[in-house]
Amino acid sequence: MNLILLDPGEVDGEGRVELFDGRAVHAQTVLKVAPGSEIRVGLLDGPRGVAAVEAVAGGAVVLRCRFEAAAPERPAVDLLLALPRPKVMRRLWAQVAALGVGQIILTNAARVERQYFDTHVLAPDSYAPLLIEGLQQARDTRVPPVSIHRRFKVLIEDDLDALSDAGIRLMAHPSAATAGAILAARMPSRVLLAIGPEGGWNAFERDLLAAHGFTAVGMGPRTLRTDTACIALLAVVHEAIAAAERVNAASR
Amino acid sequence: MNLILLDPGEVDGEGRVELFDGRAVHAQTVLKVAPGSEIRVGLLDGPRGVAAVEAVAGGAVVLRCRFEAAAPERPAVDLLLALPRPKVMRRLWAQVAALGVGQIILTNAARVERQYFDTHVLAPDSYAPLLIEGLQQARDTRVPPVSIHRRFKVLIEDDLDALSDAGIRLMAHPSAATAGAILAARMPSRVLLAIGPEGGWNAFERDLLAAHGFTAVGMGPRTLRTDTACIALLAVVHEAIAAAERVNAASR
Repeated sequence: MNLILLDPGEVDGEGRVELFDGRAVHAQTVLKVAPGSEIRVGLLDGPRGVAAVEAVAGGAVVLRCRFEAAAPERPAVDLLLALPRPKVMRRLWAQVAALGVGQIILTNAARVERQYFDTHVLAPDSYAPLLIEGLQQARDTRVPPVSIHRRFKVLIEDDLDALSDAGIRLMAHPSAATAGAILAARMPSRVLLAIGPEGGWNAFERDLLAAHGFTAVGMGPRTLRTDTACIALLAVVHEAIAAAERVNAASR
Repeated sequence: MNLILLDPGEVDGEGRVELFDGRAVHAQTVLKVAPGSEIRVGLLDGPRGVAAVEAVAGGAVVLRCRFEAAAPERPAVDLLLALPRPKVMRRLWAQVAALGVGQIILTNAARVERQYFDTHVLAPDSYAPLLIEGLQQARDTRVPPVSIHRRFKVLIEDDLDALSDAGIRLMAHPSAATAGAILAARMPSRVLLAIGPEGGWNAFERDLLAAHGFTAVGMGPRTLRTDTACIALLAVVHEAIAAAERVNAASR
Protein backbone atom coordinates (compact mmCIF):
# COMPACT_ATOMS: atom_id res chain seq x y z
CA MET A 1 0.00 0.00 0.00
CA ASN A 2 1.86 3.05 -1.27
CA LEU A 3 -1.02 5.41 -0.60
CA ILE A 4 -4.01 5.09 1.72
CA LEU A 5 -7.32 5.79 0.01
CA LEU A 6 -10.01 7.61 1.94
CA ASP A 7 -13.68 8.07 1.17
CA PRO A 8 -14.55 11.79 0.96
CA GLY A 9 -17.30 11.14 3.53
CA GLU A 10 -14.71 9.99 6.08
CA VAL A 11 -12.81 13.27 6.11
CA ASP A 12 -14.12 16.26 8.06
CA GLY A 13 -13.93 19.91 7.01
CA GLU A 14 -10.49 20.29 8.63
CA GLY A 15 -9.04 17.35 6.67
CA ARG A 16 -9.16 15.11 9.76
CA VAL A 17 -9.96 11.40 9.54
CA GLU A 18 -9.92 8.61 12.14
CA LEU A 19 -9.13 5.17 10.80
CA PHE A 20 -10.03 1.92 12.59
CA ASP A 21 -9.97 -0.71 9.86
CA GLY A 22 -7.27 -2.53 7.88
CA ARG A 23 -5.79 0.82 6.87
CA ALA A 24 -5.11 1.63 10.53
CA VAL A 25 -3.48 -1.78 10.99
CA HIS A 26 -1.36 -1.22 7.88
CA ALA A 27 -0.31 2.26 9.04
CA GLN A 28 0.80 0.89 12.40
CA THR A 29 2.35 -2.45 11.48
CA VAL A 30 3.82 -1.81 8.03
CA LEU A 31 4.33 1.95 7.84
CA LYS A 32 5.08 2.02 11.60
CA VAL A 33 3.59 5.50 12.00
CA ALA A 34 3.82 7.58 15.17
CA PRO A 35 2.43 11.04 15.96
CA GLY A 36 4.26 13.42 13.64
CA SER A 37 4.80 10.87 10.84
CA GLU A 38 3.65 11.81 7.36
CA ILE A 39 2.05 9.31 4.99
CA ARG A 40 0.64 9.45 1.48
CA VAL A 41 -3.13 9.55 1.19
CA GLY A 42 -5.70 10.05 -1.53
CA LEU A 43 -9.41 10.76 -1.81
CA LEU A 44 -11.35 8.17 -3.78
CA ASP A 45 -11.80 9.64 -7.28
CA GLY A 46 -10.21 12.85 -5.98
CA PRO A 47 -6.79 14.37 -5.33
CA ARG A 48 -3.77 12.79 -3.69
CA GLY A 49 -2.21 14.38 -0.65
CA VAL A 50 -0.11 14.00 2.46
CA ALA A 51 -1.39 13.29 5.96
CA ALA A 52 0.28 14.06 9.24
CA VAL A 53 -0.37 11.46 11.93
CA GLU A 54 -1.99 13.28 14.86
CA ALA A 55 -2.58 10.36 17.16
CA VAL A 56 -2.17 6.60 17.41
CA ALA A 57 -4.36 5.12 20.13
CA GLY A 58 -5.58 1.57 20.54
CA GLY A 59 -6.45 0.34 17.07
CA ALA A 60 -7.12 3.82 15.71
CA VAL A 61 -4.97 6.23 13.75
CA VAL A 62 -5.95 9.90 13.43
CA LEU A 63 -4.73 11.72 10.33
CA ARG A 64 -4.82 15.36 9.28
CA CYS A 65 -4.74 15.54 5.48
CA ARG A 66 -3.69 18.19 2.99
CA PHE A 67 -4.81 17.41 -0.55
CA GLU A 68 -3.49 18.57 -3.90
CA ALA A 69 -5.63 20.86 -6.04
CA ALA A 70 -6.58 18.34 -8.72
CA ALA A 71 -7.22 14.61 -9.03
CA PRO A 72 -4.70 12.58 -11.08
CA GLU A 73 -5.53 12.14 -14.73
CA ARG A 74 -7.63 9.18 -15.76
CA PRO A 75 -5.33 6.48 -17.26
CA ALA A 76 -5.25 6.70 -21.05
CA VAL A 77 -6.15 3.08 -21.77
CA ASP A 78 -9.64 1.58 -21.54
CA LEU A 79 -9.78 -2.20 -21.30
CA LEU A 80 -12.34 -4.34 -23.12
CA LEU A 81 -11.86 -7.86 -21.82
CA ALA A 82 -13.65 -11.07 -22.71
CA LEU A 83 -14.54 -12.44 -19.30
CA PRO A 84 -11.87 -14.93 -18.20
CA ARG A 85 -12.54 -17.75 -15.77
CA PRO A 86 -13.24 -16.56 -12.23
CA LYS A 87 -9.86 -17.54 -10.77
CA VAL A 88 -8.03 -15.54 -13.43
CA MET A 89 -10.41 -12.58 -13.16
CA ARG A 90 -9.90 -12.46 -9.40
CA ARG A 91 -6.15 -12.15 -9.93
CA LEU A 92 -6.51 -9.50 -12.63
CA TRP A 93 -8.59 -6.85 -10.81
CA ALA A 94 -5.77 -5.43 -8.69
CA GLN A 95 -3.10 -5.81 -11.36
CA VAL A 96 -5.17 -4.07 -14.00
CA ALA A 97 -6.03 -1.24 -11.62
CA ALA A 98 -2.34 -0.90 -10.72
CA LEU A 99 -1.24 -0.77 -14.36
CA GLY A 100 -3.88 1.89 -14.95
CA VAL A 101 -7.13 1.62 -16.91
CA GLY A 102 -9.71 4.33 -17.57
CA GLN A 103 -12.46 1.74 -17.32
CA ILE A 104 -13.04 -2.00 -17.50
CA ILE A 105 -15.58 -3.30 -19.99
CA LEU A 106 -16.22 -7.02 -19.52
CA THR A 107 -17.92 -8.89 -22.31
CA ASN A 108 -19.21 -12.26 -23.34
CA ALA A 109 -17.69 -13.95 -26.42
CA ALA A 110 -18.15 -17.27 -28.18
CA ARG A 111 -15.31 -18.85 -26.25
CA VAL A 112 -16.39 -17.51 -22.84
CA GLU A 113 -18.25 -20.08 -20.76
CA ARG A 114 -21.67 -18.87 -19.65
CA GLN A 115 -21.21 -19.83 -16.00
CA TYR A 116 -18.33 -17.34 -15.70
CA PHE A 117 -21.00 -14.63 -15.44
CA ASP A 118 -22.67 -16.23 -12.43
CA THR A 119 -19.79 -15.88 -10.00
CA HIS A 120 -19.43 -13.51 -7.11
CA VAL A 121 -16.16 -12.31 -8.67
CA LEU A 122 -18.39 -9.97 -10.68
CA ALA A 123 -20.20 -8.53 -7.66
CA PRO A 124 -19.02 -4.99 -6.84
CA ASP A 125 -18.61 -6.02 -3.19
CA SER A 126 -16.14 -8.61 -4.39
CA TYR A 127 -14.08 -6.63 -6.90
CA ALA A 128 -14.17 -3.10 -5.46
CA PRO A 129 -11.67 -3.92 -2.65
CA LEU A 130 -9.35 -5.52 -5.24
CA LEU A 131 -9.48 -2.44 -7.48
CA ILE A 132 -8.72 -0.28 -4.45
CA GLU A 133 -5.80 -2.55 -3.54
CA GLY A 134 -4.35 -1.99 -7.02
CA LEU A 135 -4.90 1.77 -6.86
CA GLN A 136 -3.22 1.99 -3.45
CA GLN A 137 -0.29 0.00 -4.85
CA ALA A 138 0.07 2.37 -7.83
CA ARG A 139 -0.72 5.60 -5.93
CA ASP A 140 -3.81 6.32 -7.97
CA THR A 141 -7.20 7.46 -6.69
CA ARG A 142 -9.47 6.93 -9.68
CA VAL A 143 -11.56 3.80 -9.41
CA PRO A 144 -12.09 2.53 -12.96
CA PRO A 145 -15.79 2.10 -13.75
CA VAL A 146 -16.73 -1.51 -14.50
CA SER A 147 -19.48 -2.54 -16.89
CA ILE A 148 -20.54 -6.09 -17.73
CA HIS A 149 -22.02 -7.02 -21.09
CA ARG A 150 -23.57 -10.38 -21.89
CA ARG A 151 -24.23 -9.63 -25.56
CA PHE A 152 -21.04 -8.98 -27.50
CA LYS A 153 -22.77 -7.81 -30.69
CA VAL A 154 -24.98 -5.32 -28.86
CA LEU A 155 -21.97 -4.03 -26.95
CA ILE A 156 -19.85 -3.45 -30.05
CA GLU A 157 -22.60 -2.19 -32.35
CA ASP A 158 -24.77 -0.15 -30.00
CA ASP A 159 -23.12 0.61 -26.66
CA LEU A 160 -19.38 1.01 -27.17
CA ASP A 161 -19.31 4.49 -28.69
CA ALA A 162 -21.12 5.90 -25.67
CA LEU A 163 -18.91 3.96 -23.23
CA SER A 164 -15.45 4.87 -24.54
CA ASP A 165 -14.28 7.96 -26.38
CA ALA A 166 -10.84 6.43 -27.08
CA GLY A 167 -9.57 7.56 -30.48
CA ILE A 168 -7.54 4.40 -31.08
CA ARG A 169 -9.05 0.92 -30.85
CA LEU A 170 -6.82 -2.14 -30.70
CA MET A 171 -7.66 -5.83 -30.45
CA ALA A 172 -5.16 -8.42 -29.28
CA HIS A 173 -4.41 -11.01 -31.95
CA PRO A 174 -1.35 -13.26 -31.67
CA SER A 175 0.06 -12.90 -35.18
CA ALA A 176 -0.56 -9.18 -35.61
CA ALA A 177 2.04 -6.40 -35.65
CA THR A 178 3.18 -5.22 -32.24
CA ALA A 179 1.69 -2.25 -30.41
CA GLY A 180 4.83 -0.15 -30.80
CA ALA A 181 4.76 -0.53 -34.58
CA ILE A 182 1.09 0.45 -34.72
CA LEU A 183 1.12 3.28 -32.19
CA ALA A 184 4.38 4.87 -33.35
CA ALA A 185 2.54 6.11 -36.44
CA ARG A 186 -0.39 7.61 -34.50
CA MET A 187 -0.83 10.64 -32.29
CA PRO A 188 -0.93 9.90 -28.57
CA SER A 189 -4.53 9.73 -27.47
CA ARG A 190 -6.78 7.48 -25.47
CA VAL A 191 -6.61 3.82 -26.47
CA LEU A 192 -9.31 1.15 -26.12
CA LEU A 193 -7.64 -2.25 -25.90
CA ALA A 194 -9.73 -5.40 -26.52
CA ILE A 195 -8.44 -8.72 -25.21
CA GLY A 196 -10.21 -11.91 -26.22
CA PRO A 197 -10.94 -15.10 -24.31
CA GLU A 198 -8.59 -18.06 -23.91
CA GLY A 199 -8.59 -19.43 -27.47
CA GLY A 200 -9.06 -15.95 -28.93
CA TRP A 201 -11.85 -13.99 -30.59
CA ASN A 202 -13.59 -16.08 -33.25
CA ALA A 203 -13.78 -14.91 -36.88
CA PHE A 204 -17.19 -13.26 -36.44
CA GLU A 205 -15.98 -11.33 -33.41
CA ARG A 206 -12.74 -10.25 -35.11
CA ASP A 207 -14.69 -9.06 -38.16
CA LEU A 208 -17.17 -7.15 -36.01
CA LEU A 209 -14.36 -5.50 -34.04
CA ALA A 210 -12.51 -4.64 -37.26
CA ALA A 211 -15.70 -3.15 -38.71
CA HIS A 212 -15.89 -0.94 -35.61
CA GLY A 213 -12.41 0.46 -35.93
CA PHE A 214 -10.27 -2.06 -34.02
CA THR A 215 -6.76 -2.69 -35.39
CA ALA A 216 -5.18 -6.06 -34.55
CA VAL A 217 -2.16 -5.82 -32.29
CA GLY A 218 0.16 -8.65 -31.23
CA MET A 219 3.02 -9.42 -28.90
CA GLY A 220 5.42 -10.94 -31.44
CA PRO A 221 5.45 -14.62 -32.38
CA ARG A 222 4.62 -15.91 -28.88
CA THR A 223 1.05 -16.78 -27.90
CA LEU A 224 0.27 -15.79 -24.32
CA ARG A 225 -2.37 -16.79 -21.81
CA THR A 226 -5.15 -14.20 -21.49
CA ASP A 227 -4.02 -12.92 -18.12
CA THR A 228 -0.38 -12.60 -19.18
CA ALA A 229 -1.43 -10.96 -22.45
CA CYS A 230 -3.66 -8.53 -20.57
CA ILE A 231 -0.84 -7.31 -18.31
CA ALA A 232 1.78 -7.38 -21.07
CA LEU A 233 -0.31 -5.45 -23.59
CA LEU A 234 -1.49 -2.87 -21.06
CA ALA A 235 2.17 -2.26 -20.19
CA VAL A 236 3.26 -2.03 -23.83
CA VAL A 237 0.40 0.31 -24.78
CA HIS A 238 1.11 2.60 -21.80
CA GLU A 239 4.77 2.64 -22.81
CA ALA A 240 3.90 3.42 -26.44
CA ILE A 241 1.67 6.31 -25.36
CA ALA A 242 4.48 7.63 -23.12
CA ALA A 243 6.92 7.34 -26.04
CA ALA A 244 4.57 9.23 -28.37
CA GLU A 245 4.17 11.93 -25.72
CA ARG A 246 7.97 12.24 -25.43
CA VAL A 247 8.24 12.71 -29.21
CA ASN A 248 5.46 15.29 -29.13
CA ALA A 249 6.98 17.17 -26.19
CA ALA A 250 10.38 17.22 -27.95
CA SER A 251 8.87 18.63 -31.16
CA ARG A 252 6.97 21.42 -29.41
CA MET B 1 -1.02 -25.99 -25.20
CA ASN B 2 -0.14 -24.58 -28.63
CA LEU B 3 2.68 -27.03 -29.20
CA ILE B 4 3.42 -30.40 -27.62
CA LEU B 5 6.97 -30.69 -26.30
CA LEU B 6 8.76 -34.01 -26.65
CA ASP B 7 11.96 -35.22 -25.04
CA PRO B 8 14.52 -36.18 -27.72
CA GLY B 9 14.79 -39.59 -25.99
CA GLU B 10 11.09 -40.28 -26.64
CA VAL B 11 11.37 -40.00 -30.42
CA ASP B 12 12.75 -42.90 -32.46
CA GLY B 13 14.98 -42.63 -35.56
CA GLU B 14 11.94 -42.38 -37.83
CA GLY B 15 10.46 -39.44 -35.89
CA ARG B 16 7.85 -41.70 -34.26
CA VAL B 17 6.69 -41.18 -30.67
CA GLU B 18 3.95 -42.83 -28.63
CA LEU B 19 2.37 -40.63 -25.95
CA PHE B 20 0.48 -41.97 -22.94
CA ASP B 21 0.53 -39.11 -20.45
CA GLY B 22 -1.22 -35.76 -20.10
CA ARG B 23 -0.09 -34.83 -23.59
CA ALA B 24 -2.05 -37.77 -25.03
CA VAL B 25 -5.09 -36.69 -23.02
CA HIS B 26 -4.70 -33.12 -24.27
CA ALA B 27 -4.32 -34.29 -27.90
CA GLN B 28 -7.51 -36.31 -27.67
CA THR B 29 -9.78 -34.13 -25.54
CA VAL B 30 -8.71 -30.59 -26.47
CA LEU B 31 -7.11 -30.92 -29.92
CA LYS B 32 -9.53 -33.78 -30.76
CA VAL B 33 -6.99 -35.52 -32.98
CA ALA B 34 -7.76 -38.50 -35.21
CA PRO B 35 -5.48 -40.51 -37.49
CA GLY B 36 -4.39 -38.12 -40.23
CA SER B 37 -4.58 -34.95 -38.04
CA GLU B 38 -1.53 -32.75 -37.87
CA ILE B 39 -0.42 -31.05 -34.67
CA ARG B 40 2.45 -28.77 -33.70
CA VAL B 41 5.29 -30.38 -31.78
CA GLY B 42 8.75 -29.42 -30.57
CA LEU B 43 11.82 -31.13 -29.24
CA LEU B 44 12.92 -29.90 -25.82
CA ASP B 45 15.78 -27.44 -26.47
CA GLY B 46 15.58 -28.38 -30.14
CA PRO B 47 13.60 -27.56 -33.27
CA ARG B 48 9.86 -27.17 -33.67
CA GLY B 49 7.97 -29.32 -36.15
CA VAL B 50 4.71 -30.85 -37.26
CA ALA B 51 3.46 -34.31 -36.36
CA ALA B 52 0.98 -36.45 -38.23
CA VAL B 53 -1.23 -38.54 -35.95
CA GLU B 54 -0.72 -42.17 -36.97
CA ALA B 55 -2.92 -43.87 -34.43
CA VAL B 56 -5.20 -43.14 -31.47
CA ALA B 57 -5.78 -46.25 -29.39
CA GLY B 58 -6.90 -46.51 -25.77
CA GLY B 59 -5.13 -43.71 -23.93
CA ALA B 60 -2.24 -43.57 -26.39
CA VAL B 61 -1.53 -41.32 -29.34
CA VAL B 62 1.13 -42.24 -31.91
CA LEU B 63 2.77 -39.36 -33.76
CA ARG B 64 5.16 -39.23 -36.69
CA CYS B 65 7.18 -35.98 -36.46
CA ARG B 66 9.02 -33.86 -39.02
CA PHE B 67 11.23 -31.25 -37.40
CA GLU B 68 12.62 -27.96 -38.72
CA ALA B 69 16.34 -27.64 -39.33
CA ALA B 70 17.15 -25.34 -36.40
CA ALA B 71 15.92 -24.67 -32.88
CA PRO B 72 14.22 -21.31 -32.24
CA GLU B 73 16.49 -18.53 -31.04
CA ARG B 74 17.02 -18.09 -27.34
CA PRO B 75 14.86 -15.17 -26.08
CA ALA B 76 16.88 -11.96 -25.92
CA VAL B 77 16.10 -11.09 -22.30
CA ASP B 78 17.68 -12.69 -19.24
CA LEU B 79 15.79 -12.24 -15.98
CA LEU B 80 17.45 -11.54 -12.65
CA LEU B 81 14.72 -11.72 -10.04
CA ALA B 82 14.85 -11.23 -6.29
CA LEU B 83 13.01 -14.30 -5.04
CA PRO B 84 9.35 -13.44 -4.44
CA ARG B 85 7.16 -15.26 -1.96
CA PRO B 86 6.41 -18.85 -2.98
CA LYS B 87 2.81 -18.24 -4.05
CA VAL B 88 3.90 -15.48 -6.41
CA MET B 89 6.89 -17.45 -7.71
CA ARG B 90 4.63 -20.41 -8.47
CA ARG B 91 2.45 -18.17 -10.64
CA LEU B 92 5.41 -16.58 -12.41
CA TRP B 93 7.22 -19.65 -13.78
CA ALA B 94 4.84 -20.35 -16.66
CA GLN B 95 4.17 -16.70 -17.45
CA VAL B 96 7.87 -15.81 -17.56
CA ALA B 97 8.63 -18.81 -19.78
CA ALA B 98 5.75 -17.83 -22.08
CA LEU B 99 6.92 -14.22 -22.37
CA GLY B 100 10.40 -15.53 -23.19
CA VAL B 101 13.55 -15.41 -21.08
CA GLY B 102 17.02 -16.63 -21.95
CA GLN B 103 17.54 -17.70 -18.37
CA ILE B 104 16.18 -17.12 -14.86
CA ILE B 105 18.62 -15.99 -12.18
CA LEU B 106 16.99 -15.98 -8.74
CA THR B 107 18.69 -14.09 -5.96
CA ASN B 108 18.46 -13.20 -2.33
CA ALA B 109 18.16 -9.51 -1.35
CA ALA B 110 17.77 -7.59 1.89
CA ARG B 111 13.98 -7.53 1.54
CA VAL B 112 13.66 -11.21 0.60
CA GLU B 113 12.59 -13.40 3.52
CA ARG B 114 14.98 -16.27 4.17
CA GLN B 115 12.32 -18.94 4.33
CA TYR B 116 11.38 -18.25 0.70
CA PHE B 117 14.44 -20.33 -0.24
CA ASP B 118 13.27 -23.39 1.65
CA THR B 119 10.18 -24.10 -0.37
CA HIS B 120 9.58 -26.84 -2.89
CA VAL B 121 8.71 -24.12 -5.44
CA LEU B 122 12.47 -23.97 -6.06
CA ALA B 123 12.88 -27.71 -6.66
CA PRO B 124 13.38 -28.52 -10.36
CA ASP B 125 10.68 -31.22 -10.08
CA SER B 126 8.32 -28.48 -9.03
CA TYR B 127 9.15 -25.73 -11.52
CA ALA B 128 10.20 -27.68 -14.64
CA PRO B 129 6.60 -28.66 -15.53
CA LEU B 130 5.53 -25.02 -15.11
CA LEU B 131 8.30 -23.79 -17.41
CA ILE B 132 7.27 -26.41 -19.97
CA GLU B 133 3.63 -25.31 -19.65
CA GLY B 134 4.70 -21.75 -20.50
CA LEU B 135 6.85 -22.88 -23.43
CA GLN B 136 4.02 -25.00 -24.84
CA GLN B 137 1.72 -21.97 -24.53
CA ALA B 138 4.18 -19.73 -26.40
CA ARG B 139 5.34 -22.37 -28.93
CA ASP B 140 8.91 -22.28 -27.72
CA THR B 141 11.18 -25.26 -27.06
CA ARG B 142 14.05 -23.73 -25.14
CA VAL B 143 13.84 -24.37 -21.42
CA PRO B 144 15.42 -21.36 -19.68
CA PRO B 145 18.20 -22.45 -17.33
CA VAL B 146 17.46 -21.56 -13.69
CA SER B 147 20.11 -20.68 -11.13
CA ILE B 148 19.53 -19.81 -7.48
CA HIS B 149 21.86 -17.51 -5.55
CA ARG B 150 21.68 -16.95 -1.82
CA ARG B 151 24.40 -14.29 -1.72
CA PHE B 152 23.51 -11.20 -3.71
CA LYS B 153 26.94 -9.57 -3.47
CA VAL B 154 28.76 -12.70 -4.63
CA LEU B 155 26.33 -13.08 -7.50
CA ILE B 156 26.73 -9.53 -8.76
CA GLU B 157 30.47 -9.17 -8.14
CA ASP B 158 31.77 -12.64 -8.99
CA ASP B 159 29.27 -14.80 -10.86
CA LEU B 160 27.11 -12.61 -13.07
CA ASP B 161 29.56 -11.95 -15.91
CA ALA B 162 29.97 -15.68 -16.49
CA LEU B 163 26.20 -16.28 -16.26
CA SER B 164 24.90 -13.66 -18.69
CA ASP B 165 26.56 -12.11 -21.71
CA ALA B 166 23.77 -9.53 -22.13
CA GLY B 167 25.21 -6.25 -23.39
CA ILE B 168 22.55 -4.12 -21.71
CA ARG B 169 21.76 -4.38 -18.00
CA LEU B 170 18.62 -2.82 -16.58
CA MET B 171 17.26 -2.73 -13.02
CA ALA B 172 13.62 -1.98 -12.27
CA HIS B 173 13.19 1.15 -10.18
CA PRO B 174 9.81 2.86 -9.89
CA SER B 175 10.82 6.45 -10.53
CA ALA B 176 13.33 5.79 -13.34
CA ALA B 177 12.90 6.56 -17.04
CA THR B 178 10.89 4.01 -18.99
CA ALA B 179 12.46 1.13 -20.93
CA GLY B 180 11.50 2.59 -24.29
CA ALA B 181 13.32 5.85 -23.53
CA ILE B 182 16.45 3.98 -22.45
CA LEU B 183 16.52 1.29 -25.13
CA ALA B 184 15.63 3.59 -28.05
CA ALA B 185 19.12 5.07 -27.79
CA ARG B 186 20.90 1.70 -27.76
CA MET B 187 21.56 -0.99 -30.34
CA PRO B 188 19.35 -4.04 -30.02
CA SER B 189 21.21 -6.71 -28.15
CA ARG B 190 20.64 -9.11 -25.32
CA VAL B 191 19.23 -7.47 -22.18
CA LEU B 192 19.62 -8.57 -18.55
CA LEU B 193 16.65 -7.27 -16.56
CA ALA B 194 16.87 -7.17 -12.74
CA ILE B 195 13.65 -6.99 -10.73
CA GLY B 196 13.83 -6.39 -7.00
CA PRO B 197 11.79 -7.75 -4.12
CA GLU B 198 8.47 -6.37 -2.86
CA GLY B 199 9.64 -3.07 -1.34
CA GLY B 200 12.44 -2.74 -3.89
CA TRP B 201 16.21 -3.09 -3.91
CA ASN B 202 17.77 -1.27 -0.96
CA ALA B 203 20.37 1.48 -1.46
CA PHE B 204 23.34 -0.89 -1.13
CA GLU B 205 21.87 -3.23 -3.72
CA ARG B 206 21.03 -0.42 -6.14
CA ASP B 207 24.55 0.98 -5.81
CA LEU B 208 26.13 -2.43 -6.37
CA LEU B 209 23.94 -3.04 -9.44
CA ALA B 210 24.76 0.44 -10.78
CA ALA B 211 28.47 -0.19 -10.23
CA HIS B 212 28.10 -3.33 -12.33
CA GLY B 213 26.52 -1.63 -15.30
CA PHE B 214 22.79 -1.71 -14.49
CA THR B 215 20.73 1.29 -15.63
CA ALA B 216 17.54 2.01 -13.69
CA VAL B 217 14.37 1.53 -15.71
CA GLY B 218 10.81 2.32 -14.63
CA MET B 219 7.22 1.92 -15.71
CA GLY B 220 6.13 5.52 -15.40
CA PRO B 221 4.78 7.05 -12.20
CA ARG B 222 2.92 3.94 -11.05
CA THR B 223 4.47 1.51 -8.56
CA LEU B 224 3.65 -2.10 -9.38
CA ARG B 225 3.67 -5.34 -7.42
CA THR B 226 6.73 -7.49 -8.22
CA ASP B 227 4.81 -10.03 -10.25
CA THR B 228 2.98 -7.40 -12.28
CA ALA B 229 6.24 -5.47 -12.78
CA CYS B 230 8.01 -8.63 -13.88
CA ILE B 231 5.47 -9.39 -16.62
CA ALA B 232 5.03 -5.75 -17.63
CA LEU B 233 8.76 -5.02 -17.91
CA LEU B 234 9.54 -8.25 -19.76
CA ALA B 235 6.83 -7.31 -22.27
CA VAL B 236 8.06 -3.73 -22.63
CA VAL B 237 11.71 -4.77 -23.04
CA HIS B 238 10.80 -7.40 -25.66
CA GLU B 239 8.79 -4.75 -27.49
CA ALA B 240 11.67 -2.25 -27.30
CA ILE B 241 14.10 -4.83 -28.73
CA ALA B 242 11.62 -5.60 -31.53
CA ALA B 243 11.28 -1.87 -32.24
CA ALA B 244 15.06 -1.40 -32.37
CA GLU B 245 15.29 -4.37 -34.75
CA ARG B 246 12.65 -2.80 -36.99
CA VAL B 247 14.64 0.44 -37.13
CA ASN B 248 17.83 -1.48 -37.89
CA ALA B 249 16.18 -3.56 -40.60
CA ALA B 250 14.76 -0.43 -42.21
CA SER B 251 18.15 1.32 -42.25
CA ARG B 252 19.96 -1.62 -43.83
